[in-house]
Amino acid sequence: MNLALSTTLHTDFDDAIERTRTALAEQGFGILTDIDMQATLKAKFGHDMEDYRILGACNPPLAHRAVDIDRQIGLLLPCNVVVRRDPTDPGTIIVDAMNPQLMVQVTDQPALGPVADEAATRLRAALATLDSTRS
Amino acid sequence: MNLALSTTLHTDFDDAIERTRTALAEQGFGILTDIDMQATLKAKFGHDMEDYRILGACNPPLAHRAVDIDRQIGLLLPCNVVVRRDPTDPGTIIVDAMNPQLMVQVTDQPALGPVADEAATRLRAALATLDSTRS
Repeated sequence: MNLALSTTLHTDFDDAIERTRTALAEQGFGILTDIDMQATLKAKFGHDMEDYRILGACNPPLAHRAVDIDRQIGLLLPCNVVVRRDPTDPGTIIVDAMNPQLMVQVTDQPALGPVADEAATRLRAALATLDSTRS
Repeated sequence: MNLALSTTLHTDFDDAIERTRTALAEQGFGILTDIDMQATLKAKFGHDMEDYRILGACNPPLAHRAVDIDRQIGLLLPCNVVVRRDPTDPGTIIVDAMNPQLMVQVTDQPALGPVADEAATRLRAALATLDSTRS
């Protein structure tokens, strides 16, 4: 199982963030959290790294179903979507979404399967939109 | 592998949140995100559930080491710590921290082992403090 569902864009970083937010919103995912890892590591250590943001995406109906099945599932919520510049090819922005099948794998709760399947379908649809709008 | 490192407290919910934040801070974890799942599900669906908060805990030196080893690790950062009321015993507050060994298991990156070990040691120390201060 891959940890990430991924795509790439060729655009500037702020535009990639906006497109990712829009694509996720169209699939019912709101962004609950937004961590700027680049800024955090710069502030703490003076360490320079490429653009790197962690968006916490939540589809409320799916989250509701998941916590009803397994109360520990909050350990893997919201679903992280990392938007980052490719360190080996600065013109490319990588978007990695956490593969929701991870929830089934690590909890050993087969009842989470349909929830993970729907989440994965929606995330793949969002990523496909990004891919098709690459400039 | 257990998904969670866990303990329980017998105190009121707000005090449990404060104790958890303090215990994590003493181990070098700042709280970057704080999601009130109970309030979110109430606002979205009118659904009543027990107190349930998801704290996103980050130890910057450990996060720095982890992203230097595997750029996809942001999918599992920050380390979630769920503070929630036991649905079957409302006088008990459960604190579940994501087991950092999950990072090694799902990435298949042995180099993350020492980072996960240190994170787990620190999280266990934080949880042990909570446990010993139960009222």
